[in-house]
Amino acid sequence: MTSPLLQKVKVALVQFAAGADKAANLKKAETHILKAAAEGAKIVVLPECFNSPYAVTAFPEYAEPVPGGATGEFLKKIAIESKVFLVGGSIPERAADGKLYNTNMTFSPKGELLAVHRKVHLFDIDIPGKMTFHESSVLTGGDHGTVAQLDGFGNIGIGICYDVRFPELAMAAARKHNVFAMVYPGAFNLTTGPMHWNLLAQARSVDNEIYTLMCAPARDMSAGYHAYGHSLVCDPLGKIVSETDEKESIVYAELDPEVIDSARAGIPVTTQRRFDVYKDVEAYVKTSV
Amino acid sequence: MTSPLLQKVKVALVQFAAGADKAANLKKAETHILKAAAEGAKIVVLPECFNSPYAVTAFPEYAEPVPGGATGEFLKKIAIESKVFLVGGSIPERAADGKLYNTNMTFSPKGELLAVHRKVHLFDIDIPGKMTFHESSVLTGGDHGTVAQLDGFGNIGIGICYDVRFPELAMAAARKHNVFAMVYPGAFNLTTGPMHWNLLAQARSVDNEIYTLMCAPARDMSAGYHAYGHSLVCDPLGKIVSETDEKESIVYAELDPEVIDSARAGIPVTTQRRFDVYKDVEAYVKTSV
Repeated sequence: MTSPLLQKVKVALVQFAAGADKAANLKKAETHILKAAAEGAKIVVLPECFNSPYAVTAFPEYAEPVPGGATGEFLKKIAIESKVFLVGGSIPERAADGKLYNTNMTFSPKGELLAVHRKVHLFDIDIPGKMTFHESSVLTGGDHGTVAQLDGFGNIGIGICYDVRFPELAMAAARKHNVFAMVYPGAFNLTTGPMHWNLLAQARSVDNEIYTLMCAPARDMSAGYHAYGHSLVCDPLGKIVSETDEKESIVYAELDPEVIDSARAGIPVTTQRRFDVYKDVEAYVKTSV
Repeated sequence: MTSPLLQKVKVALVQFAAGADKAANLKKAETHILKAAAEGAKIVVLPECFNSPYAVTAFPEYAEPVPGGATGEFLKKIAIESKVFLVGGSIPERAADGKLYNTNMTFSPKGELLAVHRKVHLFDIDIPGKMTFHESSVLTGGDHGTVAQLDGFGNIGIGICYDVRFPELAMAAARKHNVFAMVYPGAFNLTTGPMHWNLLAQARSVDNEIYTLMCAPARDMSAGYHAYGHSLVCDPLGKIVSETDEKESIVYAELDPEVIDSARAGIPVTTQRRFDVYKDVEAYVKTSV
């Protein structure tokens, strides 16, 4: 069996809360990325909305061009300096036509921009008395799934937060693009987090027998949006192998090709699908920028 | 919002272990079904392989024609007598051409055969030192997903055991046939049960915002196959609302249209799918026999 992961790799999920000061947010990211690289991580993930408060009112003010804005240049520079594949969480993007997106940039250790994912599914929820949020009031959704090719390791799929609720992006990434992991920077909250954060990671992992990485902001109860935190790594059989609490921290895990192979050998769903009964998923997934 | 479930309904999952004596197995099923009906259940579910030991060597001996065999006639009679929709777990079926299937029959309270589901995905797993089982050595897989229309309540989707690992059947049943629940008679074991029984029910529920019913045999440590048990009902937000242990028992739950509606109103994934980015699932699902 040929694993989609080409060699063992240590990953790091950087969990921290972004405040109002963008420069301070980037400095905090830099400190954590350098620390994670020093600890041996070769893939480092930042949280959703790591350079801006997570608020629809903040997005227009903090938005930047992608690539080429200050945060994009920062990510490129620090990826080179730290020699890691850097899955740059997400930031508010202002496109040339003025539209705003919730956007991820992923860079190689050489500073190449490997992928740009614009959050496809906007977070519009309304749980009376608990949580109301409407990204679509200011943001536009992306138009493709996204896979980044990490030279020497294999492919990862990228989604942002609410994207994790829609199975097709992970299914297409795993089946058509042979990803070893789905990576979701995401800011669940104190309502949806306890209900579904772990469950959705486990569901994506088990249905596709891949790793799932969920990287959250730390919780800041003085902010307008209270993130759940709990950045985690889930293995291909749905076991949470590493998880933190709500505070600022770095979550590490070693991903192992043999774990994927033995999961798929033991419970061989990846070879038992019945495409004579249902059609295989078809999605528009970009594998380069 | 119009719920796929037309009114509240009490469901019962009958968990018992089938032994070598087929007549005794049917008698036990009858006793439990009549009890569940007396308790007010309108939909009663039996476990996978409820008239036969769960063993590839037993399937040829216990197999019957579907419909028209002794067990089919029994299910029809008891559905009429108990006035319930009877999701008849599964039995080994011998088709006219001699092929064997793992097959569900679902009857209305009038004794109408509403659905026949032949397990689509055969259970062929090999976890060294823990669990090896190869249904495909004697069984043939079915060629369609299955939905039963329960007059007055709405539609249910039916899968058998290992089918639950393949998301398409539930996705198609929920999206195209507006089911309020997926019902899986299933015999997970002491390896796969603790790992995935609850998780898979929760995944199917949350991704589709429907109920999921999982009905298992009771555990019999003197049998060749040790079932996990733990029959359960999972609500549309992934909460396990009723679950038993490994022993013989009946699990009850009330399914409520309002629970489905409020789940879908709060986290509106059912209306936010991006079929411009991925195609909707296409499956061959039969809605009548």
